[in-house]
Amino acid sequence: MNSIKYYLDQVKTIFDAEQFDAEPHELYAPIDYTLRLGGKRIRPTMLLMANALFGGDEKQVHNAALGIETFHNFTLLHDDLMDRSPLRRGQPTVYTKWNENTAILSGDTMFALAWRFFLRQPSPSLQEILQCFNETAIEVCEGQQKDMNFERMGLANVSIGDYMDMIRQKTAVLLAGALKIGALYAGAPANEVERLYAFGIHLGLAFQMQDDLLDGYGDTAVFGKKTGQDIRDNKISFLPLTALKTANEEQKQQLLALFASKDNMDEEEKVRQVLAIYESLNLKNTIEKTIADEFETARKELDGIHADETLKTPLRELMETLIGRKK
Amino acid sequence: MNSIKYYLDQVKTIFDAEQFDAEPHELYAPIDYTLRLGGKRIRPTMLLMANALFGGDEKQVHNAALGIETFHNFTLLHDDLMDRSPLRRGQPTVYTKWNENTAILSGDTMFALAWRFFLRQPSPSLQEILQCFNETAIEVCEGQQKDMNFERMGLANVSIGDYMDMIRQKTAVLLAGALKIGALYAGAPANEVERLYAFGIHLGLAFQMQDDLLDGYGDTAVFGKKTGQDIRDNKISFLPLTALKTANEEQKQQLLALFASKDNMDEEEKVRQVLAIYESLNLKNTIEKTIADEFETARKELDGIHADETLKTPLRELMETLIGRKK
Repeated sequence: MNSIKYYLDQVKTIFDAEQFDAEPHELYAPIDYTLRLGGKRIRPTMLLMANALFGGDEKQVHNAALGIETFHNFTLLHDDLMDRSPLRRGQPTVYTKWNENTAILSGDTMFALAWRFFLRQPSPSLQEILQCFNETAIEVCEGQQKDMNFERMGLANVSIGDYMDMIRQKTAVLLAGALKIGALYAGAPANEVERLYAFGIHLGLAFQMQDDLLDGYGDTAVFGKKTGQDIRDNKISFLPLTALKTANEEQKQQLLALFASKDNMDEEEKVRQVLAIYESLNLKNTIEKTIADEFETARKELDGIHADETLKTPLRELMETLIGRKK
Repeated sequence: MNSIKYYLDQVKTIFDAEQFDAEPHELYAPIDYTLRLGGKRIRPTMLLMANALFGGDEKQVHNAALGIETFHNFTLLHDDLMDRSPLRRGQPTVYTKWNENTAILSGDTMFALAWRFFLRQPSPSLQEILQCFNETAIEVCEGQQKDMNFERMGLANVSIGDYMDMIRQKTAVLLAGALKIGALYAGAPANEVERLYAFGIHLGLAFQMQDDLLDGYGDTAVFGKKTGQDIRDNKISFLPLTALKTANEEQKQQLLALFASKDNMDEEEKVRQVLAIYESLNLKNTIEKTIADEFETARKELDGIHADETLKTPLRELMETLIGRKK
């Protein structure tokens, strides 16, 4: 119980034991497909770790682990449709493999299945647990809407504050919520739960900023996707927003023009020009420092939690993995 | 408290007092639009009636009333997108007034908002109430999938049994679920809850079969939509399925051909031919008898419930309204 591997294995066992296909097959086959694709399953892993941290009974959170991952995959399924993403984890997304209506309805059903998992497990804190789950779900929807709004608003009209607020809702609250739910099942004291939640938020923000950084500087072979895809897509991320803050007027106008360009320019040339501006601003260093600060804030929250140090080890290990990740 | 009007007014007051718009506006404006369109709001009305039937405190089910209607409208929002329906309650549907992505994401958020309403109200039966709500939600999704499957399968390959099972899930379980939830909040005994649920199922089946009948025989001026729209759309309903059962071989082949026709035939001629077959089979009478039987079964379930007769009055009134409806 002191290693990240233990929890990853537990989550795998929990998922392998579960039956997702059912009738009507047209509705459940895409759900089974999505949940069997695997992925990192980091949220249920964190939920189990948080529960163990406060002495919870692991069996008591099997359903919550299934629930949080099913919810996460529901959001991916609908996001992929809204973003028109053809691939997820190297495989065709549901709306491409089946069709749009299937993606909508099987997604809706996954949200309800997530609830079914949560509702299976009684707990003295059930109402609080379910409220945490549901408010998290609402924030994830709000975050996705804000992300879509940014696309329409354009780079010049989005502030770093807006962006941080968006990634907090779209990414961080679900990591934090998974930890909080695990802790609530274990009956952890309210102040410790809140500290763990704060740890999750900072971890999530750092994680997303690093994801943005890897798009510009990641090793394609390890990262799995082509460097500069956000640039090709004119996607607003922490990179151009931070670059705008330190850019001179000429660079600023150049960046705004590049991020507003449609199909009228060679994509690779565009990536080259944007990366050249980033380079001249020493952007990588600035962002790495911000990310390191965010991880440090997360670490301090974890340090402040009153719990057995040995049981914190997997969460520290997880954080180190995220800090060191190249993909 | 002894009239249907009392409960309809209560539901209106509950909805008028609620704020649905919020930030980000792009996400919540379509939700506010949808929930303000009104409609019959029959599900929250039934929920309130069921709660009163067993002596429940009406204030205790205000949130559940909001929740069940919010959920219902979420399903309409996604169904309208999947079915490409341009109008709902005489107004543009969300995907036409805004766009597809808005319909998807605002719909998802409505599902979560429904949960927020339910989770606001503590109850000793909370887990059972939420499970009833969630299992209902899953059945509604399954019903919608089956309805979409029928379109692909074609009239010849759908049995009346398949169809009844589909409308039970797509329509009846939500009416029955609304009643059950109202009764559970009131602390009604399990056997009475089950009888009320059965009443809701039969009422829902009769309601949907009548809806099918009105498509073929409704008074356009009252019904609000053009007679024969299901025929134009080749939509499988209780009418052609019942007709096939009593049709001779020639009529059967004719009906199957008419319901498989695409744009290669004049629509009004098609409606005329189908209705002529129905007429020769005396279909209206047959179906009216089936519907009357279903209402009779519902009435018997209601009769069997041990509760104050005065408090049953609004439910009886509601049933009579549904029996007599021309729209």
